[in-house]
Amino acid sequence: MKNLFAFLLCFTIGQTLAQTTHSHKLNRAIHFPNTKDYLTLKCDFHQHSIFSDGKVHPDIRLQEAAKDSLDAVSLTEHLEYQPHKADIPHPDRNRSFELATKAAKSANVLVINGSEITRSLPPGHTNAIFIKDANKLLIQDSVEVFREANRQGAFVFWNHPNWISQRKDGIATLTDLHKVYLKEKLLHGIEVVNEHTYSDEALQIALDNNLTIMGTSDIHGLIDWEFKVAEGGHRPITMVLAKERTPEAIKEGLMNRRTIVWFNNTLIGREEHLKPLLEAAIKVEKASYIGSSSVAEVVFRNDSDAEFIMVNQSAYTLHETTDVVVLHPNATTKVFVKTLNQLADFNLKFAVLNGVTAPHTHPEMTWKVVVNN
Amino acid sequence: MKNLFAFLLCFTIGQTLAQTTHSHKLNRAIHFPNTKDYLTLKCDFHQHSIFSDGKVHPDIRLQEAAKDSLDAVSLTEHLEYQPHKADIPHPDRNRSFELATKAAKSANVLVINGSEITRSLPPGHTNAIFIKDANKLLIQDSVEVFREANRQGAFVFWNHPNWISQRKDGIATLTDLHKVYLKEKLLHGIEVVNEHTYSDEALQIALDNNLTIMGTSDIHGLIDWEFKVAEGGHRPITMVLAKERTPEAIKEGLMNRRTIVWFNNTLIGREEHLKPLLEAAIKVEKASYIGSSSVAEVVFRNDSDAEFIMVNQSAYTLHETTDVVVLHPNATTKVFVKTLNQLADFNLKFAVLNGVTAPHTHPEMTWKVVVNN
Amino acid sequence: MKNLFAFLLCFTIGQTLAQTTHSHKLNRAIHFPNTKDYLTLKCDFHQHSIFSDGKVHPDIRLQEAAKDSLDAVSLTEHLEYQPHKADIPHPDRNRSFELATKAAKSANVLVINGSEITRSLPPGHTNAIFIKDANKLLIQDSVEVFREANRQGAFVFWNHPNWISQRKDGIATLTDLHKVYLKEKLLHGIEVVNEHTYSDEALQIALDNNLTIMGTSDIHGLIDWEFKVAEGGHRPITMVLAKERTPEAIKEGLMNRRTIVWFNNTLIGREEHLKPLLEAAIKVEKASYIGSSSVAEVVFRNDSDAEFIMVNQSAYTLHETTDVVVLHPNATTKVFVKTLNQLADFNLKFAVLNGVTAPHTHPEMTWKVVVNN
Amino acid sequence: MKNLFAFLLCFTIGQTLAQTTHSHKLNRAIHFPNTKDYLTLKCDFHQHSIFSDGKVHPDIRLQEAAKDSLDAVSLTEHLEYQPHKADIPHPDRNRSFELATKAAKSANVLVINGSEITRSLPPGHTNAIFIKDANKLLIQDSVEVFREANRQGAFVFWNHPNWISQRKDGIATLTDLHKVYLKEKLLHGIEVVNEHTYSDEALQIALDNNLTIMGTSDIHGLIDWEFKVAEGGHRPITMVLAKERTPEAIKEGLMNRRTIVWFNNTLIGREEHLKPLLEAAIKVEKASYIGSSSVAEVVFRNDSDAEFIMVNQSAYTLHETTDVVVLHPNATTKVFVKTLNQLADFNLKFAVLNGVTAPHTHPEMTWKVVVNN
Repeated sequence: MKNLFAFLLCFTIGQTLAQTTHSHKLNRAIHFPNTKDYLTLKCDFHQHSIFSDGKVHPDIRLQEAAKDSLDAVSLTEHLEYQPHKADIPHPDRNRSFELATKAAKSANVLVINGSEITRSLPPGHTNAIFIKDANKLLIQDSVEVFREANRQGAFVFWNHPNWISQRKDGIATLTDLHKVYLKEKLLHGIEVVNEHTYSDEALQIALDNNLTIMGTSDIHGLIDWEFKVAEGGHRPITMVLAKERTPEAIKEGLMNRRTIVWFNNTLIGREEHLKPLLEAAIKVEKASYIGSSSVAEVVFRNDSDAEFIMVNQSAYTLHETTDVVVLHPNATTKVFVKTLNQLADFNLKFAVLNGVTAPHTHPEMTWKVVVNN
Repeated sequence: MKNLFAFLLCFTIGQTLAQTTHSHKLNRAIHFPNTKDYLTLKCDFHQHSIFSDGKVHPDIRLQEAAKDSLDAVSLTEHLEYQPHKADIPHPDRNRSFELATKAAKSANVLVINGSEITRSLPPGHTNAIFIKDANKLLIQDSVEVFREANRQGAFVFWNHPNWISQRKDGIATLTDLHKVYLKEKLLHGIEVVNEHTYSDEALQIALDNNLTIMGTSDIHGLIDWEFKVAEGGHRPITMVLAKERTPEAIKEGLMNRRTIVWFNNTLIGREEHLKPLLEAAIKVEKASYIGSSSVAEVVFRNDSDAEFIMVNQSAYTLHETTDVVVLHPNATTKVFVKTLNQLADFNLKFAVLNGVTAPHTHPEMTWKVVVNN
Repeated sequence: MKNLFAFLLCFTIGQTLAQTTHSHKLNRAIHFPNTKDYLTLKCDFHQHSIFSDGKVHPDIRLQEAAKDSLDAVSLTEHLEYQPHKADIPHPDRNRSFELATKAAKSANVLVINGSEITRSLPPGHTNAIFIKDANKLLIQDSVEVFREANRQGAFVFWNHPNWISQRKDGIATLTDLHKVYLKEKLLHGIEVVNEHTYSDEALQIALDNNLTIMGTSDIHGLIDWEFKVAEGGHRPITMVLAKERTPEAIKEGLMNRRTIVWFNNTLIGREEHLKPLLEAAIKVEKASYIGSSSVAEVVFRNDSDAEFIMVNQSAYTLHETTDVVVLHPNATTKVFVKTLNQLADFNLKFAVLNGVTAPHTHPEMTWKVVVNN
Repeated sequence: MKNLFAFLLCFTIGQTLAQTTHSHKLNRAIHFPNTKDYLTLKCDFHQHSIFSDGKVHPDIRLQEAAKDSLDAVSLTEHLEYQPHKADIPHPDRNRSFELATKAAKSANVLVINGSEITRSLPPGHTNAIFIKDANKLLIQDSVEVFREANRQGAFVFWNHPNWISQRKDGIATLTDLHKVYLKEKLLHGIEVVNEHTYSDEALQIALDNNLTIMGTSDIHGLIDWEFKVAEGGHRPITMVLAKERTPEAIKEGLMNRRTIVWFNNTLIGREEHLKPLLEAAIKVEKASYIGSSSVAEVVFRNDSDAEFIMVNQSAYTLHETTDVVVLHPNATTKVFVKTLNQLADFNLKFAVLNGVTAPHTHPEMTWKVVVNN
């Protein structure tokens, strides 16, 4: 009954639910702080709706994005794969973008026009976002279609290079065709994370070839179900370090490779981007020695959704933990440090295990601790 | 990526989530027991998909139903209201049923063909379910369309007679047109519960006119969001007391008015149907006197999702509660009864406040307690 | 190691736990608002420590009280029952009070000197609180000991008159000896709630004989375990309506019978005291009609720990519930009322089922709703 | 009222609480499996009651132990520190053991006689457990008292060598006196974990000097509060690998250094003991390739309370995680491995970060995976 004659229903009939503390996280908004120099914009640039092989109307995608507190999305319908064609003939491939843009008005989410160029491997699937007209991408030749996307000013990234439907071993590998794209600068990014998967090999390709590190949900069904949001899960996103919250600034950030992927309690990014984010997220709030002892109580504030798993790299040993320290999300954690003598200040160094800057490589962070007492 | 080439993906890629006890109810399956004489079949006969003004594909509706452990659903698209027409021209009004039927194969849910006849009041909106061909219901005359539905063997019920878009006072009232339907036996049920609303007046109309008591979600968006499933909420359903789990038996149950509505922790039904359900749900598991005292410990088992709020109507007073006793869902609760002397057996009588048999009327239930020690 | 040389350990070594929302209520402080005319002081006047048959030191009792946010406690050790005598000979019966007073300094809890006069029935067990010297109560004669307590200015109340160890039927009944006490005004209160038990008969005795209604934990072990605090449970308390937060004002409130018992989500008190508490706890925050309809959305704020179960007694029917409405604790709840026409204001009347003013008697409350739009 | 006349109260008056899933872990029993060769017995050998400076009666200690599912405890009252002396003169230093033994009858927990020899450093505090008569340990000379404990057959361990009240730097260091003990074989173990603290230096001392690795709660107040049990916390324990569940077998295990400490989600032990426990706790339940791909889905079962943080050391990369894998407690977790080709079997190697075998040293475990399809 609700959606039929909308005029009345803006007046939202609905019983306010009491504040409960049962579920894991009632407010599911994804939270990471801005860095010193950039806004940290949360984006999901690979999604589907009923306009290709997704199962929901674009309106639901925008509502999901708003609940997750995303800054920008793209509904990247398959250009060549249209399983709902019998019901939705839709000749205009920009239709999903149009409807999403309309829905975005009440959602405070930026919508970027994008499409998925859907081929067998090579080149596999590729997203072109920040395009101007999806219809013009209906080009059979796999190089020409990339050229057209680039003529439109698109940011182009390779989707799920680890997809076992296209590579049985799941090992992302550059093909000759991809080398052509790279040579012509037609390809700008690569998915290191797609839906539930992560690829060390894709990360290495990104680093070796100057590609932007991407992570996306590739959602077809519902975000809530696919990523178990009620149990504390979250969708993969690409956080873009941008100068302002506009499509242009996001594109600039993408083109300049300033991204960090947030996936399954893991942050993946180049060291020069991940470290500033970790610096913004994890701060020493205060520090003081316990009585006349030389054991310092250091209060770390973790202003992010990540539960950080850190390994002590300092010369000092810790008084309440082994060398493994866990910083709970959006909370403070006390770390007790045995500094041998009372010092005015000292450095703490930790490897952050759920940060990844290269395969098997975790950032090492140093915090200067100034003692307050 | 997942839904594109399905052949591989039946092999479910996905990380098993650890057993957590964080969320309110991990298994959201709605549970009520069968009665002594009938199966208790959980049904939602008023839902929408993208084939009228809903926001999801029928596949999602079937997945929701499977998660809620429903026995039967009907996707009752508006015949006359087609806001997605620009994208989905779909001349065939049985299309939603066809797709739902296909999706049902993996969902173990019965799908009933139905449509919503969508008119201003009178007669307002009406669902016809168990129809044979929705296309034939595209008839302008509001009596003729009911006659056609009945010719097809439909079970026909009046939707949200309390809808404030059609009646500003929200007071369900029979119109002259409805009296015509009743006289011709064209109308068989009435929604006492629709989405978030309940109507005492609709319940009285059902009782006065021999109509089946109905409760439906009328979902357009997502069940999870609309009914706050992660926080312990549930959609409204109609439970049909049926002889077997078949469409025919469900229709027979509906036609003979054997329904109980489950809505917002409340059960609404005729006394002759609600009482057997309460008898099946609430049982005295055991009873014994505490030592040599005449205080009996009576263990009630509540085999249902309802948290029952009961008021003592017995002559005996209770030892651990006032006259209000709460039976937690799917659990046992001990009630201590002061019987003055040790008895071999005795009766306990409670009014069940979240059972409703008529406006302001709650069933009174008597349990015979046989003492075990 | 911690408690040995205390000087250092004021500096609290301990890792701050992250904010989690797992447990039912992280802050277990019991909350009820003050009434219009009085402070609502939370008291537990029946507790035991190792100085009679309890299992913990008085320090733990004060820590429990602080966690529960109590205003006042009394450790009412049995005068005549000393099972730990072999280990704790303690000739001074004021010792528990002394230690509790010392512990109270850091707990912000008032400690009242009290003792339990422990006899077989009649008179059973009796608490005398606000005494000056417990040692002087070691008097064998059951009338003389009451006289001495009264000479010391004590407030005297009958403990667990429903105790099945002393009355096999659990039916609280005045004995001839109690009638003597009443005639001499030596007895001022009676436990209607003790630990896990409630007595309708004790409530009736209180009302018939002008006695103060009392509820206590009678704790011997741990409050956390006995009342399942981690799962959302709470100990029984007596809330005293007092003019200020002092022992004298509490005694004045008790002597003038201004108490409400909070027990197992139930509030028990005389109508003249319970109603002002309900008025303070439940307020209409705002109200407005939905669009041009005559259905009013009324927002109730429940500023208390009680989950109120209310039954509609108004002429108006409700739009989203049957006649049973549940107000969640420390939250707002919307109630939708069908007033037939748009009114400037109207009255809503509910019986509050988990309020009790006499056996089987629940207060009826009326709220005037002023419509804002 | 409950504990006074016990005869009746075995009949447990109490309302069964409904099954709720709100709190973190309703059943707080600590769980680790037996190893291939030994029983894994959960022990806490450093606790206090009112018989030294604790705040509860020994009965509460046994109830806590039963709730935590411990196999053995010792109430190690300070011999020389008796702050409750004014109230509890107790000349017999075996009294706490006697009462604990009595309480143990209903708790299924073994009680070991023990005492804490309480000196300034050196030697600091020392526990002697498996003693025969605590009174005979009231010897001033710090060597003689150790000799007497050893004559009684005691297992003797150094408590909190990192205690900042005795060493301002918190750095555990062998003193000359300890070297005397070691030379005479009077000292057998050392606390690497005490209450909330852990000491890398103590662990190194244990390894260098052939001492048993110990971890204890050193509880004085309540286990529930000190270790935040309701929020998922647990007390530190020493797990002894023993041939049977008897005091003799536990002592044999302690004397032969077969211990693993469970502390704050960390397991600390010698490699030869920790590895068999990890092998028993973490098993490959099944494995199969996804379709025709060479990505294997490996199901690990973690049959323990530890949430294992593991770092991949294999040549293979993973399909759904970086090199960090988390195994949830008492649950299965799927790990997807890219083996390049379909293999009949293969090895997976992980470092287990919350296992510790030496300072900064984590065990590396190899699992042979046999593929089922």
